[in-house]
Amino acid sequence: MKVVIVGGGFAGLGCAKGLANAQDVEVTLIDERNHHLFQPLLYQVATAGLSPAEIAAPIRGILSKARNVRVLCERAVDIDLVRRVLVTDTNEHAYDYLVLACGSKHAYFGNEDWEMHAPGLKTLEQATEIRRRVLSAFEEAEGEASPERKRALLTFVVVGAGPTGVELAGAIGEMSRFTLVRDFRMTDPSLARIILIEAGERILPSFDEALAARATRDLESLGVQIWTNSPVTHIDAEGIEVGSERLACRTVLWAAGVRASSLGEKLGVEQDRLSRVVVTGDLSVPGHAEVFVIGDQAHAMGPDGNPLPGQAPAALQQGRYVAKRIGALVAGHSFPDFEYIDKGQAATIGRRRAILESGRLRFAGIAAWIAWLLIHIYYLAGFKNRLFVVMQWAWSYFTYRRGARLIVGKDWRFYDPDQAEGDRGSGAGE
Amino acid sequence: MKVVIVGGGFAGLGCAKGLANAQDVEVTLIDERNHHLFQPLLYQVATAGLSPAEIAAPIRGILSKARNVRVLCERAVDIDLVRRVLVTDTNEHAYDYLVLACGSKHAYFGNEDWEMHAPGLKTLEQATEIRRRVLSAFEEAEGEASPERKRALLTFVVVGAGPTGVELAGAIGEMSRFTLVRDFRMTDPSLARIILIEAGERILPSFDEALAARATRDLESLGVQIWTNSPVTHIDAEGIEVGSERLACRTVLWAAGVRASSLGEKLGVEQDRLSRVVVTGDLSVPGHAEVFVIGDQAHAMGPDGNPLPGQAPAALQQGRYVAKRIGALVAGHSFPDFEYIDKGQAATIGRRRAILESGRLRFAGIAAWIAWLLIHIYYLAGFKNRLFVVMQWAWSYFTYRRGARLIVGKDWRFYDPDQAEGDRGSGAGE
Repeated sequence: MKVVIVGGGFAGLGCAKGLANAQDVEVTLIDERNHHLFQPLLYQVATAGLSPAEIAAPIRGILSKARNVRVLCERAVDIDLVRRVLVTDTNEHAYDYLVLACGSKHAYFGNEDWEMHAPGLKTLEQATEIRRRVLSAFEEAEGEASPERKRALLTFVVVGAGPTGVELAGAIGEMSRFTLVRDFRMTDPSLARIILIEAGERILPSFDEALAARATRDLESLGVQIWTNSPVTHIDAEGIEVGSERLACRTVLWAAGVRASSLGEKLGVEQDRLSRVVVTGDLSVPGHAEVFVIGDQAHAMGPDGNPLPGQAPAALQQGRYVAKRIGALVAGHSFPDFEYIDKGQAATIGRRRAILESGRLRFAGIAAWIAWLLIHIYYLAGFKNRLFVVMQWAWSYFTYRRGARLIVGKDWRFYDPDQAEGDRGSGAGE
Repeated sequence: MKVVIVGGGFAGLGCAKGLANAQDVEVTLIDERNHHLFQPLLYQVATAGLSPAEIAAPIRGILSKARNVRVLCERAVDIDLVRRVLVTDTNEHAYDYLVLACGSKHAYFGNEDWEMHAPGLKTLEQATEIRRRVLSAFEEAEGEASPERKRALLTFVVVGAGPTGVELAGAIGEMSRFTLVRDFRMTDPSLARIILIEAGERILPSFDEALAARATRDLESLGVQIWTNSPVTHIDAEGIEVGSERLACRTVLWAAGVRASSLGEKLGVEQDRLSRVVVTGDLSVPGHAEVFVIGDQAHAMGPDGNPLPGQAPAALQQGRYVAKRIGALVAGHSFPDFEYIDKGQAATIGRRRAILESGRLRFAGIAAWIAWLLIHIYYLAGFKNRLFVVMQWAWSYFTYRRGARLIVGKDWRFYDPDQAEGDRGSGAGE
């Protein structure tokens, strides 16, 4: 039986691992990137705490012992449900079972031109771009004579106060107050303004209200200002507008919404307003029991009547379930529907602070932070990354330094000031 | 007294450290990048052994305790020797003493259009670009049906057999034979052809002939073919030409020559054919005792009548010397000319093999490799990087894995296959 999995995130990799060395099953895992990314820690790459290689690992390395799994670095572009063929940019792959786990990307609600001024945080490239922008702003401020321009350079806006936005804002606050403060002579990085803008009524809407209030206080102690009920109406290179109010700032980061990968459209079935494919109780596509959609790309109903959250644990559970289900189907057995086990959620705010809820448990402060640490260390893929991340964290914790404070350009060609601008390969959107 | 240093490499940083907290001296260190780069290990980033942050550190972090040194992230564009002012892209900086330590970049001997097909290795951006190309070639080969195109994808050419070229070729050989071989299903990475092309008579011309012969054998044992007396006549996206011979290959790396930074031209004094500024015995510019040129940018005469090599130890010695000399001049003392102490040179070829010469000492094999390790660990800037690099090496050595096998794109904007190519920010030269 040929199983084709598209996507090497938590869902796709969980499914491939579940099918590793299974009898009579040949698995092809297709991803346009060569690496699996531990997205829950991506904000730490964006804020110079970790290096890209510490939270990412080559997919074929992770699956190296699964002899029935081959990994291809191709981009899926179409699905032929009748011929049962997945089409990529370079090949066609016939399947008996197809698993789509392509994840999601940032959405700008019809304002796609905001992207160049307000990058989202979904890929390593975006994380290093955010790191470049944040660190460059401090560097430029150091040489800037005009107080007005200096203030705009030292104003950082994060749009969207879900867990990613909160963690980004907290990390920038911590970096400016603890790490950078010793290294500048003419600028005081601790005077940087960090503003977290949220259209809704409060931050962290998916969390318990008391915990969100605690997170608000923790953020404020790191110098983060929180603007709620503040829908963004405009973003450009010089600033951001909230209603009629204009804020001059040079760095805006986008954490305000995601949309599922567009490959789901090729299925021709119902999608929700976030482009997620609505799946049945066994995570398959209605009318196609051999096609599964899992992870952030799927709209699967949770026990509480809401769709499952776009989080790593849900994706992992779905991937493992589909692997077991395919195994049962291949063997000719029946298999029960998917049951989601909610393990709770957590968010961290700077050093030593976090909030965590799981079932009826709610806690905050240093105990939640230690729990957060242990959970993330446990889930990190591969022994080596885990060890290195722990060492980086220990080192940063005790020295207040950050290990990856590099400004790396977008252009690898050697820049020669004698040659005209036009001779350089142009960067993206700037 | 105002001292302006341009460049945060070994020479410039050595000088700044030498002047740290010196009385009556205000130092401004200017670099267009925010990080000091440990260039001797850059080839390990290019071949996925180390991460960028492990061999680079923010300059202002390194100098954070030097309270009389300020660091500016600006690009030097001109020098006014009469007004004693250094001009950058955003500011002007008056100096009493000026130290130029801008280093060198790759040179293509009038064939600058080769650069996009054959990147050099001088910056972190170039190193990640080389890593991207090498790893992508293996990934593409895995999905390639045509044997001819597959062979071109698995042919890697390194042009130039100095230490950088030898180390790059050896590391690619080691990676294909030991690391990647377990992870591919339809391709045997150990069949990759690695070809080291040198226009001169032998590899490693600066080394003892017996050591170079040993290095040749070591390279061949890693599957590297060595073509000497082979001047390159053409490079394009599909291959390389040596005389009338054409070799189909998709990855060409350039390690065949450098040229000093162009800022030296602004001095209006003699430069050698590599654009290096010819300096006097005290490393100053003829006629301007207050302007020094050091490191790869300088043509300083060595004790053997040849110009000093463009290597880290020479740059470091020159930087420290100029710091002491400026201290003496400020105090009104005289100071002897610069004396270079040749500590020898080393090159490593894959795991457990290296060659090393120092004075009359010559050795090769595992002893030289251990010595090479210790020397590089000793010189790595900053305790933290040192520890992490040692751990990475130990991990790679025992597991035969490589920690940074990431293909990271040039473009941070989210790629949407539904949108036309033209909508993406264009990458550099491809």
